[in-house]
Amino acid sequence: MASVIPASNSSMRSDRNTYVGKRFVHVKNPYLDLMDEDILYHLDLGTKTHNLPAMFGDVKFVCVGGSPNRMKAFALFMHKELGLEEAEEDIKDICAGTDRYCMYKTGPVLAISHGMGIPSISIMLHELIKLLHHAWCCDVTIIRIGTSGGIGIAPGTVVITDIAVDSFFKPRFEQVILDNIVTRSTELDKELSEELFNCSKEIPNFPTLIGHTMCTYDFYEGQGRLDGALCSFSREKKLDYLKRAYKAGVRNIEMESTVFAAMCGLCGLKAKSTLIKPQTF
Amino acid sequence: MASVIPASNSSMRSDRNTYVGKRFVHVKNPYLDLMDEDILYHLDLGTKTHNLPAMFGDVKFVCVGGSPNRMKAFALFMHKELGLEEAEEDIKDICAGTDRYCMYKTGPVLAISHGMGIPSISIMLHELIKLLHHAWCCDVTIIRIGTSGGIGIAPGTVVITDIAVDSFFKPRFEQVILDNIVTRSTELDKELSEELFNCSKEIPNFPTLIGHTMCTYDFYEGQGRLDGALCSFSREKKLDYLKRAYKAGVRNIEMESTVFAAMCGLCGLKAKSTLIKPQTF
Repeated sequence: MASVIPASNSSMRSDRNTYVGKRFVHVKNPYLDLMDEDILYHLDLGTKTHNLPAMFGDVKFVCVGGSPNRMKAFALFMHKELGLEEAEEDIKDICAGTDRYCMYKTGPVLAISHGMGIPSISIMLHELIKLLHHAWCCDVTIIRIGTSGGIGIAPGTVVITDIAVDSFFKPRFEQVILDNIVTRSTELDKELSEELFNCSKEIPNFPTLIGHTMCTYDFYEGQGRLDGALCSFSREKKLDYLKRAYKAGVRNIEMESTVFAAMCGLCGLKAKSTLIKPQTF
Repeated sequence: MASVIPASNSSMRSDRNTYVGKRFVHVKNPYLDLMDEDILYHLDLGTKTHNLPAMFGDVKFVCVGGSPNRMKAFALFMHKELGLEEAEEDIKDICAGTDRYCMYKTGPVLAISHGMGIPSISIMLHELIKLLHHAWCCDVTIIRIGTSGGIGIAPGTVVITDIAVDSFFKPRFEQVILDNIVTRSTELDKELSEELFNCSKEIPNFPTLIGHTMCTYDFYEGQGRLDGALCSFSREKKLDYLKRAYKAGVRNIEMESTVFAAMCGLCGLKAKSTLIKPQTF
């Protein structure tokens, strides 16, 4: 694949997934190397139009969340925390040419919005993983942050996901590839979960636990809400379902974690976890 | 359900789905009438905070599409076409208090963005249907407009969807309700399809056809793209799949039509169709 990186680097390309001591973000697509140009449509970036290694080569942490405004606020917060010299005004939306997603970078931290639901985050992840691959990023940690519905826990509790499960409490993501269904693992990095949990102990009044996160395709009927335009189940059925979810180890519900776990796991994002602050239920 | 509409209207409430000569947008949820307030979270609107009948009671056409910018452009275009007196600057994002969706109104036309994918449009449709219900809207036509991948047709051709099918070419939408799978119909309004098709004939150089639209959960692996971060199928397998889709009557692929057809069909949106302009494949 052609890119704007110097030609002298290209000899490293073939073996970079196993390059000594570093873990590069990798793609699993034999066709990519045959392409003259890779356009990341929904990010408004490309290998011929942008110097991706120069723009993103130093990225070590990627934080993703649904809302564009929140990801901007998060980037500005990180900028202050890191005490970087760059002026706050210089942190601009890198994907300003499109209104599909927003992206901000401060030092080694990249913050990107992903919209709502599995299909929306899936498009972003395909293009983000290719971006990190083209930029020769290595040892990257990715964390999804967002609100969710808690089950049997106090509002405001932070849930660090150990494993993402589907609506049937199964630790799997069913990916439809053409007209075949392929089941993928949704396990997340245990070391990172514990590291994040230890961090939470250092902050006063920051209730945190490690648990399973359930991922649904629907916010209303799929999560047992009684206030959608459609509702065909009783309050009792809803409570029975949520109780069974709790018994299965589920502590919160959201709409992106299974595909997030599956895709990051397949593409060598070294450590990954989902950090979620339940607000409802 | 409490709302800001005058109390004298409340006697009409119980029988308004069948009110003589008019077809009201209705919800299918017995719990809604028991609620003191209905907050449309993702639209930043509510029955106690907004006078929904005054704001939206005259809506007759709802046009939805993925991109916020495009929906704004569409609203401004409609404003000019309708020759309304209101200044263009007054067409403001009604959902400006949230960054989940954008909404613009010009005369009887409401334009709303829905993001990408079934879960994202599903959240918006739940809240939009409740909004139209609370606002006493009747005889509403809803049209989804957007780009898509064409199959076996010239780029730029407009496809008017007669029926939405899933990745297995079946005219169904599988809705997960708690942990049950319910299959819903995805048929769209035939009369509207023909009406739109007849309109297209009046415009020079506007190639248009009526056909099936396939709706997938994924943009890359689900639609046979060879340029995602993950690709496990051959070019031949891709072509075979697309040929089978064509044989089954599919003329384009997108990511929202099945749930759009299913939900609008259930809630009395009188006529509905999807109008799509393929750009790729």
